Amino acid sequence: MSQATPYAVPKGLLLKADSIAAPFNAEVRESLASRPRPPKLVGILSTSSAPSRNYAEFTRRQCEALGVSFVLKEVGSARDADAADGEGVEDAIIEANEDASVDGIMVYYPIFGVQQDHYLQQVVSPFKDVEGLNFKFHYNLYHNVRFLEPKSLLASAPLGGSPSTSGDVPPPGTVKSILPCTPLAVVKCLENIGVYNTVLPYGDRAYGKTITVINRSEVVGRPLAALLANDGARVFSVDIDSIQEYTKRPPTSTRTFHPHHVVHPTSNTLEQCLGQSDVVISAVPSATYKVKTAWLKDGCVCVNVAADKNFETDVREKASMYLPAVGKVTILMLLRNLLRLLQYQDIISP
Amino acid sequence: MSQATPYAVPKGLLLKADSIAAPFNAEVRESLASRPRPPKLVGILSTSSAPSRNYAEFTRRQCEALGVSFVLKEVGSARDADAADGEGVEDAIIEANEDASVDGIMVYYPIFGVQQDHYLQQVVSPFKDVEGLNFKFHYNLYHNVRFLEPKSLLASAPLGGSPSTSGDVPPPGTVKSILPCTPLAVVKCLENIGVYNTVLPYGDRAYGKTITVINRSEVVGRPLAALLANDGARVFSVDIDSIQEYTKRPPTSTRTFHPHHVVHPTSNTLEQCLGQSDVVISAVPSATYKVKTAWLKDGCVCVNVAADKNFETDVREKASMYLPAVGKVTILMLLRNLLRLLQYQDIISP
Repeated sequence: MSQATPYAVPKGLLLKADSIAAPFNAEVRESLASRPRPPKLVGILSTSSAPSRNYAEFTRRQCEALGVSFVLKEVGSARDADAADGEGVEDAIIEANEDASVDGIMVYYPIFGVQQDHYLQQVVSPFKDVEGLNFKFHYNLYHNVRFLEPKSLLASAPLGGSPSTSGDVPPPGTVKSILPCTPLAVVKCLENIGVYNTVLPYGDRAYGKTITVINRSEVVGRPLAALLANDGARVFSVDIDSIQEYTKRPPTSTRTFHPHHVVHPTSNTLEQCLGQSDVVISAVPSATYKVKTAWLKDGCVCVNVAADKNFETDVREKASMYLPAVGKVTILMLLRNLLRLLQYQDIISP
Repeated sequence: MSQATPYAVPKGLLLKADSIAAPFNAEVRESLASRPRPPKLVGILSTSSAPSRNYAEFTRRQCEALGVSFVLKEVGSARDADAADGEGVEDAIIEANEDASVDGIMVYYPIFGVQQDHYLQQVVSPFKDVEGLNFKFHYNLYHNVRFLEPKSLLASAPLGGSPSTSGDVPPPGTVKSILPCTPLAVVKCLENIGVYNTVLPYGDRAYGKTITVINRSEVVGRPLAALLANDGARVFSVDIDSIQEYTKRPPTSTRTFHPHHVVHPTSNTLEQCLGQSDVVISAVPSATYKVKTAWLKDGCVCVNVAADKNFETDVREKASMYLPAVGKVTILMLLRNLLRLLQYQDIISP
């Protein structure tokens, strides 16, 4: 293709998660050094899935390299080939919730399917939820509530009224709310590679950018689209059966709550969304799903979040930058969440 | 078929939800009479779905007949054909949460799909959750925790330790936990038609019964299978890709928590499950799915929970009793939950 053009067309930059991860690596290492003891993260593996086991071993290596104590708890078919997938996983979570020596809990999904897995995610204590999958954290994310008082996690019903979002510094008595680690990792990558503009005020640094997010699951796609829109971007959220537009600058608004993104239907096709997107993020859990390079806007930034590559091999013929994997950054966000949860504990029981 | 046999084979009994609903109707009416004012239930309709609107109108008629004040709040495509399904639904829930004049909230699902709908279900305050879809109520159900202190709903993390389950009378300071209304309606129907044996002790009255539940959603099938197993039944939980056995009498057990059902894989096929089941309950949201009459055990009890009939027209050639719909009982369970939530409020702020 490019060889056939009469002059050389330089390919887009291939980005490595390693270099993006480096400053977070240093930050986590430094924070850990200030703790009286290494925090303890329990990973719960309850299936015989090879990718889950690989991810657990990857977690272990990252933890050990940084000085976090990692304990892998194996239950169900992960421990015993005759047991079922997920057998004992809920009891293992409850044990870890109740064990005062455990600071963080990570459960390797998928286990039962989205519905029952969502139930399990709520069983994890929010005080140990390093993955940021508790409903309260999602509620804060969707409502652009960036800070919380740790003791508010002890309250159940979502309540109106929340600390101001202006500025990056938590108001007194509050800490930053935990964000789900995969969407957070994508945002941090976009910050690192200059998609977020630090000249703009905090909380609005993606203003002016159009971003397509392909996948609308509650674990990755929807929180990611909301985060980006809450940061000022115009976001197309693409799922198998619909395309929505997320923006916090709707032309008309009847919102009466905390300022946050609003969701509108759009008549744009995927091709039309991609044709105007500065950034394309894909997280489709399928080996065959591919974003068509031909539909991309010239010079866009492409980020692959899925285990299998969702972009065609020639993506860099169009993209100015291509980040094929964010896993290394995700695990650092998880450890950052762990350190933040320790802060919560420090505030609750000093 | 039956006409071809040389002697008359009597058909199974066709059960009507009306007669099952009658005692609950009386109970709700009596409880309402003792309240200082009629409770207010807000229904939130956010889609253009005709079945959802019909269900909303059915709710209204039932409420009006019994003296509950019903207010239908229409948002999104329910109010405006140009708006999207679900537009404004979360804000409407939050408004109803914060409106002290509202005692109960009912949201007409499906809206966005199971994942995002599950998120919305958690936005409803547990103190107004007449449908019983809050995570805490599900957690109690799965753990066979039957009573709760209302103020525990203000606490977030699931905690060990819970009031005893022996007997039907709540220990002092506690009330019965809310149960999701559809599974509860099925249990009440089974009690009414004699599947539950009142000679057995409370909490174990389905002992000796084998029951197949077809569907394992978090809204109907899984909580129903768990409720029945917690009440002593041996339950086959059948989903599109697996069959599990739920029982609180496993041959070996390593449980260390509150006694409740345990889930095991089973090698039984659906035909084998049905062939040994005293009760078959189907809740498959598909017009084409049918339970094969030929596979049923002679004399079993069949209950259809789906909107479309999941049983073949000749089901009563095999079944001793067939209950084709539970909707009328479901709505009464919802109103019973509303009355119970008023008790919670009475205890929290007397």
